[in-house]
Amino acid sequence: MQDKPLIFVTNDDGVTAPGLRALIDVVKPMGKVVVIAPDNPRSGTAHAVTMNQPLRLNQIRKETDFEEYSCNGTPADCVKLAYKVVLGRHPDLLVSGINDGSNSSINIIYSGTMAAVFEGAMAGVPSIGFSLLRDGMDTDFSAAGIYAGRIIRTVMSEQMPEGVCLNVNIPHLPLDQIKGVKICRQAGGTWLEDFDIRKDPKGRDYFWLKGIFARIGDGEDTDEYALEHRYVSIVPVNFDFTDYEAINLLKRWDFTF
Amino acid sequence: MQDKPLIFVTNDDGVTAPGLRALIDVVKPMGKVVVIAPDNPRSGTAHAVTMNQPLRLNQIRKETDFEEYSCNGTPADCVKLAYKVVLGRHPDLLVSGINDGSNSSINIIYSGTMAAVFEGAMAGVPSIGFSLLRDGMDTDFSAAGIYAGRIIRTVMSEQMPEGVCLNVNIPHLPLDQIKGVKICRQAGGTWLEDFDIRKDPKGRDYFWLKGIFARIGDGEDTDEYALEHRYVSIVPVNFDFTDYEAINLLKRWDFTF
Repeated sequence: MQDKPLIFVTNDDGVTAPGLRALIDVVKPMGKVVVIAPDNPRSGTAHAVTMNQPLRLNQIRKETDFEEYSCNGTPADCVKLAYKVVLGRHPDLLVSGINDGSNSSINIIYSGTMAAVFEGAMAGVPSIGFSLLRDGMDTDFSAAGIYAGRIIRTVMSEQMPEGVCLNVNIPHLPLDQIKGVKICRQAGGTWLEDFDIRKDPKGRDYFWLKGIFARIGDGEDTDEYALEHRYVSIVPVNFDFTDYEAINLLKRWDFTF
Repeated sequence: MQDKPLIFVTNDDGVTAPGLRALIDVVKPMGKVVVIAPDNPRSGTAHAVTMNQPLRLNQIRKETDFEEYSCNGTPADCVKLAYKVVLGRHPDLLVSGINDGSNSSINIIYSGTMAAVFEGAMAGVPSIGFSLLRDGMDTDFSAAGIYAGRIIRTVMSEQMPEGVCLNVNIPHLPLDQIKGVKICRQAGGTWLEDFDIRKDPKGRDYFWLKGIFARIGDGEDTDEYALEHRYVSIVPVNFDFTDYEAINLLKRWDFTF
């Protein structure tokens, strides 16, 4: 019993999200599973941490090899609480998701799902984020769950390189229409943002963020290309954000007085 | 008058922060300056964006070549509002800070100051984040302002590589004790987190996040090393988080059914 891997699960869509249930179902047969997820959706929170208010944990379930909690914090808070308060150690694997919506390309930077994954990687835990490309209201997580299981088994049998974690995005398609897995680089892209400008009853402006994602550049090695062509994309990402090429360029710039 | 560069200023410590005032003083002689800063401190918000509530802008000042607004959103929201609502175009330069506290090493990942800078870089705007290593309550931004000015002038006279932005950290020292500028890589590091566990009047636990930063690894080319040795550190960072070395390794892993 002691040798079962300890698997930690979180997300940013909140503890009631169907994608979290799907991911729990995938990992439950694989080991002892502990879930800490935000009590409310935290999409777009990125790597926010809660420093100005206290955190609360609410135990929802405690069974043999399965515990579940909700937390009033962000996904990154959930991971920190897991290590220090609930597990008392680092888990053997961290999985986050399955996010209801894409985290491909630059969307990784806004993603609470992937923030939890970075937080895992920074502690040396093999960590994977799963996101399903949304397609209206009726999200079907079944094929995504099967691919998540396959990818988790591979990661658990291999050695994740230091500092690396995985950003997995999955097309919203029936299983037999997904062509397989592709290892990719993060596609270039941008949000062509706009604001819906409205007036409140007192005549003052307020602004709703809205935007359309636009891919920049192409290349058959990107996650966006893989997803468009019905593949599951895996981008290995690193929390060292240094641009090593730029170092040599900047060393030639003059910063002296 | 039309040819003056348009400089956008933001931060994550909020519109009243002394570090923002110091940065405004630096850039005011350099061009037309527009400031949009959060109405409250947003430290630790990382790249959060506000999608579930409307944003508000509050004009604080409008003078020749100087406008200032507060906003109820995050630093990333401020940048998005700048482009679309206030400026109507991309600025020629984005500066964020001067943050009251370090954003060196992995702290970049939690930083609202640097989120604004990434947001600038994603739109192709030369973007720089400035942070001052804190040293108690009486923060003196004077030397930091002088270095910020020097670095901004260099960036405006050079061509920032595509996708790159700058994470500048400045020791909290008198000007004559700072040895100069070093171009660095992001140091490895981790937060040895702990939680202060307390009981509320009803006997229920609540948790305050606290932690001690620990550098991992060494190397004389890191930002942490430069700062310890009384240099200003500049790390060129990129919003492409792909680990290109790991791509080749992962391609050898078996993900087939």
